[in-house]
Amino acid sequence: MRNKNGEQDVLGRKGVLYIVGTGPGSLEHITPAAREAIRKSDAIVGYGTYLDLIRELLHDKEVVSTGMTQEVDRCRKAVELALAGKTVSVISGGDPGVYAMAGLVFEILRSAECGVRKAELTAETNGKQPIPEVTVIPGISALNASASRLGAPLMHDFACISLSDRLTPWDVIEKRLEAAASADFVIVLYNPRSKGRAGHINRAREIILKHRRPATVAGIVKGAMREHEKVIVTDLESMRDSDIDMQTTVIIGNSKTFVWNNLMITPRGYERKLKI
Amino acid sequence: MRNKNGEQDVLGRKGVLYIVGTGPGSLEHITPAAREAIRKSDAIVGYGTYLDLIRELLHDKEVVSTGMTQEVDRCRKAVELALAGKTVSVISGGDPGVYAMAGLVFEILRSAECGVRKAELTAETNGKQPIPEVTVIPGISALNASASRLGAPLMHDFACISLSDRLTPWDVIEKRLEAAASADFVIVLYNPRSKGRAGHINRAREIILKHRRPATVAGIVKGAMREHEKVIVTDLESMRDSDIDMQTTVIIGNSKTFVWNNLMITPRGYERKLKI
Repeated sequence: MRNKNGEQDVLGRKGVLYIVGTGPGSLEHITPAAREAIRKSDAIVGYGTYLDLIRELLHDKEVVSTGMTQEVDRCRKAVELALAGKTVSVISGGDPGVYAMAGLVFEILRSAECGVRKAELTAETNGKQPIPEVTVIPGISALNASASRLGAPLMHDFACISLSDRLTPWDVIEKRLEAAASADFVIVLYNPRSKGRAGHINRAREIILKHRRPATVAGIVKGAMREHEKVIVTDLESMRDSDIDMQTTVIIGNSKTFVWNNLMITPRGYERKLKI
Repeated sequence: MRNKNGEQDVLGRKGVLYIVGTGPGSLEHITPAAREAIRKSDAIVGYGTYLDLIRELLHDKEVVSTGMTQEVDRCRKAVELALAGKTVSVISGGDPGVYAMAGLVFEILRSAECGVRKAELTAETNGKQPIPEVTVIPGISALNASASRLGAPLMHDFACISLSDRLTPWDVIEKRLEAAASADFVIVLYNPRSKGRAGHINRAREIILKHRRPATVAGIVKGAMREHEKVIVTDLESMRDSDIDMQTTVIIGNSKTFVWNNLMITPRGYERKLKI
């Protein structure tokens, strides 16, 4: 038995899984590799908002769309469809490899192999669950998209920290904020605020202010490269007043980051040696 | 006077500058936005190796190619061409916003405005040097490309550190390695080794080993998504024996990163709450 792409199925259940990054949202930032994976797929699985952004690529596909916090259900469904012999794309906005779906798909495949689905195993598979062929296709992640809109804030060492404590204890997050701030990393904050945790971004700001001047540049990008995109270049002192939500990425400069023509720029270090 | 795209030049010298990321190398990972910028450009400026990877997009273009360490010359030339009224793409492999050309272009534009080119100023520009229209077009950066080849190592907070001390004092680099290792960040190492600094990756490893077990997963990706790509999943203990050069990205897992089917996976934290 062969699937749509001519690859042989194991017991008709092997299938193909693409974990696809669709970038910040507009079609012009989706790579040809990502489009091709979507084109080859029988089924597309993703969070509603991300699928809406690429709606025109999805005609003639089986589409499985679920809500924001149902990512485990989505990935389980994708694995099931693949094990049924289909070619499936799991869609992540941004890059599936950065705080997104790639890890979850592997974790679910691993738990399936480890026995969750033991009832399905047969002698023909030598007691091992067949697993689909899996390919991760990277996309332009929020950190790259947001940085490009702000100017060039990531020209030097940076730390990426999610402020969501849904899956991470808050004390671990605080420890990382302390470490990144004290070693003068540029700091990229994912998931800076949601209804359940409006105070986290303020707490993060306080921790960073223990190590950085209030005039340290802060860049705030909401919905990078989407309709209604909003880009603000401000500083640690004033950022409290800014409009920050879950669709926002916040980038705090290091001690050398400066503003020029309303752009946020972290020098690479050329001025030391090259006298530009 | 109008340039090729119909945009008005100031004194025939304004021009357009695109700072374009071409991703890991193959055309299938270049976004439509990047291709379109290259298509609209009169002149293409870049490092030889990156231009070779996109050779087929460059016919009919004025191409300015220089060697690895001549990035200041390249960017100056690009700014000059733009100020002469041309539409110019400055090409970076990966993402121009991550340790790459975006910042340098802005730094050169800023120094030009600040007086380096004062001789060129005329009364008509009100004493201000006109600056080109500048757009940064992000690309798939080495960290995203390498992570996708390793599995899913960047599912949790990570720090990106360049081991090149060409423009950064080594003690700053050591301080950041200490901070990132002690706070259990996944650590992405750029520029891990070159002829001039063969020992840096070993020193970095020693610093990380003060805070992590020798069995901590280490992923090594050489030439991600190019011909002769090499992907190795190993650990801190054994990584010393691996083939690491300037084209290599090294990713050190956090304390929870595991290996499954030779893939490097950092759990997002679902196992705490969702029992997968």
